[in-house]
Amino acid sequence: MAGKKKKVVLKNYVSGFPKLSDFEVVETDDAIRSVPPEGSEAVVVKNLYLSCDPYMRHLMSTNKEPLRMESFVLGEAIKGFGVSKVVASGHPDYQVGDYVWGFTGWEDYSLIDKPQALFKINHTADVPLSYYTGLLGMPGLTAYAGFYEKCSPKKGEYVYVSSASGAVGQLVGQFAKLMGCFVVGSAGSDEKVELLKSKFGFDEAFNYKKESDLNLALKRYFPQGIDIYFDNVGGATLDAVLLNMRNHGRIAACGMISQYNLDKPDGVYNLGTIISRRVEIKGFAVFDHYSHYPQFVETITQYVKEGKIEYVEDAAEGLENGPSALLELFDGRNVGKKLLVLDRE
Amino acid sequence: MAGKKKKVVLKNYVSGFPKLSDFEVVETDDAIRSVPPEGSEAVVVKNLYLSCDPYMRHLMSTNKEPLRMESFVLGEAIKGFGVSKVVASGHPDYQVGDYVWGFTGWEDYSLIDKPQALFKINHTADVPLSYYTGLLGMPGLTAYAGFYEKCSPKKGEYVYVSSASGAVGQLVGQFAKLMGCFVVGSAGSDEKVELLKSKFGFDEAFNYKKESDLNLALKRYFPQGIDIYFDNVGGATLDAVLLNMRNHGRIAACGMISQYNLDKPDGVYNLGTIISRRVEIKGFAVFDHYSHYPQFVETITQYVKEGKIEYVEDAAEGLENGPSALLELFDGRNVGKKLLVLDRE
Repeated sequence: MAGKKKKVVLKNYVSGFPKLSDFEVVETDDAIRSVPPEGSEAVVVKNLYLSCDPYMRHLMSTNKEPLRMESFVLGEAIKGFGVSKVVASGHPDYQVGDYVWGFTGWEDYSLIDKPQALFKINHTADVPLSYYTGLLGMPGLTAYAGFYEKCSPKKGEYVYVSSASGAVGQLVGQFAKLMGCFVVGSAGSDEKVELLKSKFGFDEAFNYKKESDLNLALKRYFPQGIDIYFDNVGGATLDAVLLNMRNHGRIAACGMISQYNLDKPDGVYNLGTIISRRVEIKGFAVFDHYSHYPQFVETITQYVKEGKIEYVEDAAEGLENGPSALLELFDGRNVGKKLLVLDRE
Repeated sequence: MAGKKKKVVLKNYVSGFPKLSDFEVVETDDAIRSVPPEGSEAVVVKNLYLSCDPYMRHLMSTNKEPLRMESFVLGEAIKGFGVSKVVASGHPDYQVGDYVWGFTGWEDYSLIDKPQALFKINHTADVPLSYYTGLLGMPGLTAYAGFYEKCSPKKGEYVYVSSASGAVGQLVGQFAKLMGCFVVGSAGSDEKVELLKSKFGFDEAFNYKKESDLNLALKRYFPQGIDIYFDNVGGATLDAVLLNMRNHGRIAACGMISQYNLDKPDGVYNLGTIISRRVEIKGFAVFDHYSHYPQFVETITQYVKEGKIEYVEDAAEGLENGPSALLELFDGRNVGKKLLVLDRE
């Protein structure tokens, strides 16, 4: 652990779309982080894979409302979910050599003071470690809890997923197909649309950027209406969906990426339909569902081994490419789950 | 049943605020309605009390979206909930002399072809028949189902009710107090605010027309935030509430009277908070809850007899005053449950 290491830092708080110049990759001396402080329960981890997730946009600003999490500290390594290996531990639950996933830093090594939400990985050769940044980690559990718990899906229901090729969306669509639902996804490029249909088994998919009227597009794909909308984008898409919900429909409000870079959010005008159609809109956050992680990981690992779930990653390499990898999320350049590889071990 | 009778008809479909000139009270020959058609299961009722309810605004327009109910037919008696007495019946469940409440016409006598949703009233002297237009009828069941089923209230929670002195709001507030909640209501006049505090036992109440910033008003009354919002108004009030919900809060979307007379609904901008705070917004409609009516009426009748529930009606007399009574709802002139008395029996 000797020598100079790198970290990705935020230089200034962001308004509007984040830019590469808002970030800096700086050299850091990790030596001081190589052992936990005497008597503490901290662990030190070597970071292997870092997860690029839309919620991180909130942490680039000082407005804490969106997630009520601490914003990034300027000049320090930004934070996010990642897969790491324990290299020193003062905590009885974590041993040197353990693979873990959880909230860590965008740097080579991180000191984690309070490892309560650090999940141990039961690593086996048939599932790549990187999957714990997505399919088997936070985004996977998000898809699982949001779809099965918040949407109460039933066989034969009509399901729409926005941002459908992303880390969460691709899984929601596949869960819905496994449940016997009719599933339509939208994404922002023809390449992604093709992926949804050919790889993930969506019944239909469309490029929302090519639709001049989302309401009409949804009426085309769902002439009978939508039972379940898994919302990753909010804004105008949510508004159009509200005109197309069926009676007793459910909307899982998972994310609103279309709104994250706006100074003033878009208005949503069609909420009146939730009364006439008795629709429920359910905001949720994955950390309320951590207790379901063991059941989740067992189920999904089995699905992966049986070939029932496909999963597409979009990996960038090295901390120096961290900022550009992260920013791809906000102009939709990533295809599949975006992550950053530091060390493939 | 001989002689000329009256009915309230809609002369033209309405856009914007409804006006008296949109309605007409006309004489009608009821003789043809005095017996059900041979072999049918229809009943003929004499209407005693008619209920003025906000949802009726939707039926004054041809846009069926808001409730997906049939609009009023121009020139025919408008429809609504009422308390009636059976005067002729082809249906085995209804006998001449039965008191019923359900969907009827704004006229002296109505022929009800399909009496499926006509509830029989077990009339006792200690509860006024008129209460079945409100407390013990559709609005009461709305309050009951919306509060207990949709809001999942718990003792000690913080509850906000808009349009709080109306037929539904006054009951929701009292149900919440019976549950041991802290309850604040808003209404559109100082007289109503006083009623909320002195008669219905709300902990606090405010005149929303005197507040220049609803968000700040809510922060004043709920420094700790809102667990449950029972929404009767939608629009800007809902938007301000979204900034003040607590984690895991619930919003029962019951009505949006602030929006009913607008050509374009107001935008709601703060939906992002439902993710960070894991809030659920639940649209509902009373007719999904009709099966709970027997349990409801038993519970609430007992509350009334024990003096645990107060109830305020605002009655107008005679069909000729029907249009003005109905329109009071939309400028908030009514104080308490608005109804029209045709015959006190």
